[in-house]
Amino acid sequence: MKATYDSDGDRVTVTEDARQQLYDASGYGEPLDGDAVALMPVEAAYLLRKGKLEDVDGDGYSGFLRHAVEDEAVLRVYADLRDRGYYLSVSDDEELYLYARGDHPANSSPETRVEAVDEDAAVEIGKLPSLLAVADDDGDVTYFSVEEEKPDGGYTPLDADVSVVAEEHGRGVGVSDSDALREARYGSTVGDDGEDAGDETLLLSPVEAAYLAKSGVLDPPDTDVDVDARRLAVYTDLRDRGVCPRTGFKFGADFRVYETPDDEHAALLVSAVEQDVRPSVVEVSRAVRLAHGVRKRMVFALVGDEKVEYVAVERERP
Amino acid sequence: MKATYDSDGDRVTVTEDARQQLYDASGYGEPLDGDAVALMPVEAAYLLRKGKLEDVDGDGYSGFLRHAVEDEAVLRVYADLRDRGYYLSVSDDEELYLYARGDHPANSSPETRVEAVDEDAAVEIGKLPSLLAVADDDGDVTYFSVEEEKPDGGYTPLDADVSVVAEEHGRGVGVSDSDALREARYGSTVGDDGEDAGDETLLLSPVEAAYLAKSGVLDPPDTDVDVDARRLAVYTDLRDRGVCPRTGFKFGADFRVYETPDDEHAALLVSAVEQDVRPSVVEVSRAVRLAHGVRKRMVFALVGDEKVEYVAVERERP
Repeated sequence: MKATYDSDGDRVTVTEDARQQLYDASGYGEPLDGDAVALMPVEAAYLLRKGKLEDVDGDGYSGFLRHAVEDEAVLRVYADLRDRGYYLSVSDDEELYLYARGDHPANSSPETRVEAVDEDAAVEIGKLPSLLAVADDDGDVTYFSVEEEKPDGGYTPLDADVSVVAEEHGRGVGVSDSDALREARYGSTVGDDGEDAGDETLLLSPVEAAYLAKSGVLDPPDTDVDVDARRLAVYTDLRDRGVCPRTGFKFGADFRVYETPDDEHAALLVSAVEQDVRPSVVEVSRAVRLAHGVRKRMVFALVGDEKVEYVAVERERP
Repeated sequence: MKATYDSDGDRVTVTEDARQQLYDASGYGEPLDGDAVALMPVEAAYLLRKGKLEDVDGDGYSGFLRHAVEDEAVLRVYADLRDRGYYLSVSDDEELYLYARGDHPANSSPETRVEAVDEDAAVEIGKLPSLLAVADDDGDVTYFSVEEEKPDGGYTPLDADVSVVAEEHGRGVGVSDSDALREARYGSTVGDDGEDAGDETLLLSPVEAAYLAKSGVLDPPDTDVDVDARRLAVYTDLRDRGVCPRTGFKFGADFRVYETPDDEHAALLVSAVEQDVRPSVVEVSRAVRLAHGVRKRMVFALVGDEKVEYVAVERERP
């Protein structure tokens, strides 16, 4: 096959058996008139690297890379997914689109866009496609699935007549002990070690106190606790969805979340972030790896003006 | 025993058998003239909670807390360590000092100050004492040991005559393959899958390229890579100490660090931060928990104007 830069220098045109060998058999590029195929630079670079193209107008792999490939992360992710047997298409602005395993570009649509970045990138969580691929400095590619999460659980709301006497206690609020609150997993008993403590107090964390104050459960109804507005928004939304958020401190997250009162282990770790948050992929990697290590699902709660959206990110092995 | 607020309201004076029962037998407070003992509010609150004091001028536990204890995290940590059988002393500004197990305040000095904070606190890593205690919203206390780390390893510096031909390659630099560089664990070979790749290139990450350029190993000697100054400072310092830093991306850190060429596993995870960094304790918890889960030691590299200092933080169970 003979490969040349096209007249714009944007693509590579391959002739001589190209259609059959590259497109029909292997899903590379776009077929042109006759037997020719137009390749995106990323595709041509991969074929040069694999020795399936000898050169492009005399440029070998290294020379071609310098001339034609803008973002090497895209090439590395493309190569890694191709090596794993997937078909991909590449847009004019070097965005990757992945086909389901076995699907050929000639008769199917891509399953997802792939966000392909280097390890020093930051990404906007709320705008990621369903696959994030990070090319790291070891030469490896790590994949993360990204999907909308809809927390949903079996905790029933407190009865409307629940009311507890509240008084300031440290950062939070101490309330008269209440079966209703205990059953819904509010509060904790500090130092409740069986000795005579002289009182029966359930301690509410600041975010619990603020939520229960809003809900009209506390008497007196106003609390003077200092709560981060984003955390309170997420706590409120999670409680409204019938799940139970408790502190995620030990796991380095805002909340761990129990889905039903029978759950011994929390299913989710939730971090409350701004809607347009752009963490580094190193931070994403850390949060996801930790969650995986404790068999929970890492969920970013994106807090906007009107609502909270949840995005679950997990390690993926395509 | 009879407990009263002292005239300043800063401490509690206990009389009637106090010296023997509180100080001699149990290390609470400071002995005064005669049989009396002066307690710090935190100590008095703990003794009220335990029922060892009945009241302070009529105030029970809850009333006393409101009047006299400024920072509940300090009280919770004090109580937790006391419950574990340790003696502590409390300074006028409510700082905690911990004695080694078995040491009594009457005849020994404290082993360390304890930084006691709530889960929503931030801490200056470079100024922590050797024990950090975090009281979380579950009513639990989590401890972290903090100690200076001096990374030290068995990697020998490159011979002065090592020189490799370098050219820009993506974000980093591609160099002619070199046994010396491979032995010292520089670079990686991307897509080196045994097929005919058409060249033998070792790819250096940006930080490796910048370091080797500084070291005079690259030809031409100047590289045009974009490297974070803090990461480069830490990379350089670690290499100078004879250890080998590689990307820590998969672990959510800047570097994983191998101590000797024989090590199959990296011993340390290193995050490069500013000298006066103040992460939230949630972030500290996340980094330390992840490192523990992969059996590595979490080290914060504090980058100052003149030097890099290392602080290892680990989960501690006193």
